[in-house]
Amino acid sequence: MRVAELIFTEDRANPGLDDFRDLSTADRRPDRPGGRGLVIAEGTVVVGRMLASPYPVRALLGVERRFRELADELDGVDAPAYVTSAETMAEVVGFHLNRGVLAVADRPAPPTVAEVVAGARVLAVLEGVGDHENLGALFRNAAALGVDGVLLAPGCSDPLYRRSVRVSMGHVLRVPFATFDDWPGGLDLLRVNGFRVAALTPRADSVPLRGLRAQVPGRIALLLGAEGPGLSAEAIAAADLAVRIEMVPGVDSLNVATAAAVAFHEVAATG
Amino acid sequence: MRVAELIFTEDRANPGLDDFRDLSTADRRPDRPGGRGLVIAEGTVVVGRMLASPYPVRALLGVERRFRELADELDGVDAPAYVTSAETMAEVVGFHLNRGVLAVADRPAPPTVAEVVAGARVLAVLEGVGDHENLGALFRNAAALGVDGVLLAPGCSDPLYRRSVRVSMGHVLRVPFATFDDWPGGLDLLRVNGFRVAALTPRADSVPLRGLRAQVPGRIALLLGAEGPGLSAEAIAAADLAVRIEMVPGVDSLNVATAAAVAFHEVAATG
Repeated sequence: MRVAELIFTEDRANPGLDDFRDLSTADRRPDRPGGRGLVIAEGTVVVGRMLASPYPVRALLGVERRFRELADELDGVDAPAYVTSAETMAEVVGFHLNRGVLAVADRPAPPTVAEVVAGARVLAVLEGVGDHENLGALFRNAAALGVDGVLLAPGCSDPLYRRSVRVSMGHVLRVPFATFDDWPGGLDLLRVNGFRVAALTPRADSVPLRGLRAQVPGRIALLLGAEGPGLSAEAIAAADLAVRIEMVPGVDSLNVATAAAVAFHEVAATG
Repeated sequence: MRVAELIFTEDRANPGLDDFRDLSTADRRPDRPGGRGLVIAEGTVVVGRMLASPYPVRALLGVERRFRELADELDGVDAPAYVTSAETMAEVVGFHLNRGVLAVADRPAPPTVAEVVAGARVLAVLEGVGDHENLGALFRNAAALGVDGVLLAPGCSDPLYRRSVRVSMGHVLRVPFATFDDWPGGLDLLRVNGFRVAALTPRADSVPLRGLRAQVPGRIALLLGAEGPGLSAEAIAAADLAVRIEMVPGVDSLNVATAAAVAFHEVAATG
């Protein structure tokens, strides 16, 4: 292995392991940059994505087998990698992690909305998506289906919570995101940049998603709200058009990450 | 309330409550018709769907407030409804259920593949979908997006497990499904009925999902495998064509229920 520093230890009190203690709350510790805790990656796939991301990795902890699987990704990484038994790992972390490897990173300074908008062709704009799993799944779908960035309006949870990182398969570390200061006024910035903002809502004056690209061939931002309450009236009013996923009457709306995937596939240019 | 029989009880030993004991395994008890346990609905939405379904309800258990919410759906139902406190309910069930109402039903005789195929225009065919949550989510998406039935090949779990029923929002009780005896040979029955079988797979000779309806305007069956392993080579060979969801290179495949939703939206006639 060619990682900068490989440290074999079974000493649970090793201060180098401090980043991995109380892992179930370490992603929301206020003593971290930005007051929002560490970013935690679990398992070889997500740890590999973190190592390839711009997130500054502080340290890794895992069993030897997992580090062997990550040998290529660890090449040139400048962070200590602590190799322990599964038992020591479980005692440090506080519970048994069957994924066998962890990495923790600091949060880089988040990009601005303007930075995410620049260069993007398809954007997702989320309002009120507070469920960590839905948010993570949505980032995974955005990455898979060619969405260039995600913009967060009020009511969204933190995409860098541990569970969101895991459910996203690490794609929250890959798809750029930013948070609106001004909502929904901030949508004007998208229009200035040539975007049309399409709100997903079953409203009567909405147009079917199918065929939307014929109407909006250029830059497009898809505005999505949480299942249940949906988008606020203010957000819908601030959009350029309303779009609906045609559904069988009497059936509940789709899960927000699922609805997003359907919409992303319709508008994004992939393949 | 107009339910046939409303029984107020705080007697935990009441034999009428026996269907609700050991609820975490009651959906797989071999002593039930078909050897596969009871069908359990949780919460007013799913219980309401069960009451409206062809599933023969045996009994209901809940707190008074939930029965009041279900008054319309309970009209004319011929099954005892046990009204208890949340505490008694938790003791009988074995854990605290915050949804406050339950219904249990027997399994009716399952339809045959031929019965599900007759009259359908769009079908989903699943191979190896063993995850209960994915299976439930897939049924929810099928119901919302106008899929007429689901056919199960080997390796799929039981759609009537409690967790699948819950995640489906009760739509497993509404979307008909059947299990293949002969796989993949059973697909011939679909062709005889005018279906084209489209396998979702990223294979090189696949055609993009977008625009599939121009090629296959009539009856269509979408063949889906579990994420990870995907479809078996035998299943793909038995299909009429291979279809891919275009994705960004290097990103994991979508969750199977999400991929299904994208495909259902592309081919189903809804709205």
